[in-house]
Amino acid sequence: MSPPDARKPDAPPAALPPAMSPDEFRRLGHRAVDWIADYWSSLGSLPVLSRVAPGEVRSMLPPDPPERGAGEAGYDAVFADLSRIIVPGLTHWQSPNFFAFFPANASTPGVIGELLSAGLGVQGMLWATSPACTELETLTLDWLAKATGLPEKFLSTSAHGGGVIQGTASEATLVALLSARRRALRAIGGSAGDSSREHALVIYASTQAHSSVMKAAMIAGLATGPDDKRRVRLIDTDEDYAMDAAAIEHAMRDDISRGLVPCCIVASVGTTGTTSIDPVDAIASSIANVFDRVPPVARPWLHVDAAHAGAACVCPEMRWIFRGVERADSLCFNPHKWLLTNFDCDAYWTSDRESLIGAMSITPEYLRNSATESGAVIDYRDWQVPLGRRFRALKLWLVMRHFGLEGLRAHVRSHIAMAEWFEARVREDDRFEVAAPRTMNLVCFRLRGEGAESDARNKALMDRMNRSGELYLTHTVLPRVSSAAPAGSSSHRLGGRLVLRMAIGASTTTHAHVERAWDRIRNAASMVG
Amino acid sequence: MSPPDARKPDAPPAALPPAMSPDEFRRLGHRAVDWIADYWSSLGSLPVLSRVAPGEVRSMLPPDPPERGAGEAGYDAVFADLSRIIVPGLTHWQSPNFFAFFPANASTPGVIGELLSAGLGVQGMLWATSPACTELETLTLDWLAKATGLPEKFLSTSAHGGGVIQGTASEATLVALLSARRRALRAIGGSAGDSSREHALVIYASTQAHSSVMKAAMIAGLATGPDDKRRVRLIDTDEDYAMDAAAIEHAMRDDISRGLVPCCIVASVGTTGTTSIDPVDAIASSIANVFDRVPPVARPWLHVDAAHAGAACVCPEMRWIFRGVERADSLCFNPHKWLLTNFDCDAYWTSDRESLIGAMSITPEYLRNSATESGAVIDYRDWQVPLGRRFRALKLWLVMRHFGLEGLRAHVRSHIAMAEWFEARVREDDRFEVAAPRTMNLVCFRLRGEGAESDARNKALMDRMNRSGELYLTHTVLPRVSSAAPAGSSSHRLGGRLVLRMAIGASTTTHAHVERAWDRIRNAASMVG
Repeated sequence: MSPPDARKPDAPPAALPPAMSPDEFRRLGHRAVDWIADYWSSLGSLPVLSRVAPGEVRSMLPPDPPERGAGEAGYDAVFADLSRIIVPGLTHWQSPNFFAFFPANASTPGVIGELLSAGLGVQGMLWATSPACTELETLTLDWLAKATGLPEKFLSTSAHGGGVIQGTASEATLVALLSARRRALRAIGGSAGDSSREHALVIYASTQAHSSVMKAAMIAGLATGPDDKRRVRLIDTDEDYAMDAAAIEHAMRDDISRGLVPCCIVASVGTTGTTSIDPVDAIASSIANVFDRVPPVARPWLHVDAAHAGAACVCPEMRWIFRGVERADSLCFNPHKWLLTNFDCDAYWTSDRESLIGAMSITPEYLRNSATESGAVIDYRDWQVPLGRRFRALKLWLVMRHFGLEGLRAHVRSHIAMAEWFEARVREDDRFEVAAPRTMNLVCFRLRGEGAESDARNKALMDRMNRSGELYLTHTVLPRVSSAAPAGSSSHRLGGRLVLRMAIGASTTTHAHVERAWDRIRNAASMVG
Repeated sequence: MSPPDARKPDAPPAALPPAMSPDEFRRLGHRAVDWIADYWSSLGSLPVLSRVAPGEVRSMLPPDPPERGAGEAGYDAVFADLSRIIVPGLTHWQSPNFFAFFPANASTPGVIGELLSAGLGVQGMLWATSPACTELETLTLDWLAKATGLPEKFLSTSAHGGGVIQGTASEATLVALLSARRRALRAIGGSAGDSSREHALVIYASTQAHSSVMKAAMIAGLATGPDDKRRVRLIDTDEDYAMDAAAIEHAMRDDISRGLVPCCIVASVGTTGTTSIDPVDAIASSIANVFDRVPPVARPWLHVDAAHAGAACVCPEMRWIFRGVERADSLCFNPHKWLLTNFDCDAYWTSDRESLIGAMSITPEYLRNSATESGAVIDYRDWQVPLGRRFRALKLWLVMRHFGLEGLRAHVRSHIAMAEWFEARVREDDRFEVAAPRTMNLVCFRLRGEGAESDARNKALMDRMNRSGELYLTHTVLPRVSSAAPAGSSSHRLGGRLVLRMAIGASTTTHAHVERAWDRIRNAASMVG
């Protein structure tokens, strides 16, 4: 399609102020840094959960973009708007009183890393488009694998493995599923148009797996919606809310007997609900039992989703959660959750990079270059869904240099110690109970009681706390566990019950904040009866 | 799985230095800002394309992570390493002499926006997890839609539409395809397990569409690899390298006659190779012709991928490229390419948000909250692949406030004027020819000549320029166009030929840089004969 004839602007281009002026940037950058430092200083006194009503933020801003730019002179208004409109509209994830979801903890070197990445403004889609962006990423992922005791097979120096930074664990799960599908289709010869085989693939995870497993299945075309379980099996959990390895073995055998093809298994190491730990080693054994005469490459792909919990493995005493990961095909965890590295930074490793690249790679002419064709370099665009990519390794590199492994261990241990303390207080108070085994820095607890009425009281307690602005907690509902669980187990009684989650992991949280939170929860419990 | 008994660390947690110290951040932040300002000052004198060999950057860094953290005292070494190891390993996308690929232009407000986003460290997955993060995004996408003349149906204030920031255009294409599949399956009643219908869906784009279309098809399970064309149709282009609307109509009719279901059409507005413009209006008419008795909701989804070119529509005289987009279901372009907003920022709009959300939404218990259940808010996690999301609207907001629409228009017009000037010089020099119609800021040109020998000469010219460090260009290979193209058209002669791409769009590029680039290209042409 061609332009119409009369397409000239009425006026010649206006004289342009430079879009990147070093001096202007110096002034505005210092000012923004100072504004952030002030924000950090105020974090402890801000209501954690934003109190604005839907539409309130938007209503305070102009409905149309400005015709004339304000340039540097406009930043008095920018910073005033940030403080007056934006900050009250935030839920403060960096607040020391943030105990909701899982943390997304930031740090000084994390923010400096983001700043440097933005200032450099390079693209790491290919090695050639910025070699340092790729090589620092490969190196820092090797560093992190060593720091968490991962097996040699996931290092970039191994024959078939290596690490990459994904945006989120959701993307890691998707990439694992796509790798699994690639490998399965090659193994069963389904790549040449045999739809019946291609559409017989099945994915497995526990009922407590993250919603991203089902979302990945929907994206990949294995499910048409969250309720379509034709090719997704959600396996029951045991009394600790961990996947039942016998049940998954049974499910795979059942599917095979019906002509289906087990393709991918996602083991959750640290579930979102309760940080329960799926037994990776036992799951790998179940796979081996079912596929005992099949070469490893034709077995289903085992992905370990340790999004939150994996960070704990910087501490040797926590590495029991990774038992068996040497038998997995891929593993991820998020330094952006509990390891002081600003979002987004999901660390993903695989021991079968050929299947990953085979699933993702396309090389159009405009991306061809001699470095890629030499085979001597990594082009990370083939390891992820997007093409473009920021220089995210910088922040991870700075975090590890700034804190060292010693500092990262102390960071993790301090949160676990706070959670131990909190758990002990819950146990001491007869009104409350600990509602799920604590494996690390999350305490699931609730006001005692039966039935829906007790759920309502717990919900009322949570809402009261969250409205107070003094802390922010979220909830989950415990699953009904497998009938195979021991009859006396409390998990039978608690199945289907609403429980509160106290996740301790913000960078700014100290023991005093947890003590105060407990005081407030106890007092509020008196109010809700 | 439960922890082993002896799991206590040998030593108590070390005393922790604060991970987020306002004073330390002030000092280090100022230093990082100054380092970036110095880097920007040096950009014009750095070799654009990095000269390091594979492995060189990594070999200069320690193979293992540090046991002890260096803290603030370590930043002398950090900044020394950045200057000595990292910068020489970069290809400088912000260099005024960067003319490769498409730009990824940064700006002062873009970097300040990234810095503020990192400093705030909030998550915008749900409205409730930071209302301002969601509402500012909705508002700035409405601003941008108005700024580029998009139809009302894409605004958040319309009955069924709205905008969202995706990471990249690749993710936008994937999300469009998933929305298309959702709508198609509902229309044909394929959501209840009728595999034959579900697996009859077909996607269409031109041979010049971005590789992300094929990648999205692979991810979604519509193709097993880049060569699997069973459910992907790449339509021939006309003599201007734009999609042939008659050919797509023919292809759809052909597929329907074979029992297949046209599901999604991607129109490229500004192809990666040559910035050719697929005729959106004519394509929409082709769809209407084929589906003339079918209600609109059962028609294939029309997605407009204007990743690079869409930014030009801040100028009214460029809006001819958007002719017909009021008939599309979704559209995206990347402010992170040519609109001064740091990567990543892809602006995606749809007029059918129900199909998008239907394709992506899952609500596990731990994400339930009263704001979501009221229906009064947007939860952007349901508009994208990942769950977590950064506060990316800040940078787009600051860019629009800083430059205003006037400044953005002047920015775009200046690059187009430079490209016009460059094109005129190519036409004046008998050794060269303009190799494709110039629609905006990209000039495709080549040394004249026939056959593979002329390709080698053009490649040699490019390699000589890129090795010099004085500028950075990339290439493409022109497609063989439809036999329907006029016989005298130069595109018949140039089909399959390698051409050089001069993409003018870096924030720092001035007319003088383009003049100097042309001088160097001319001189180098004398050398390669």
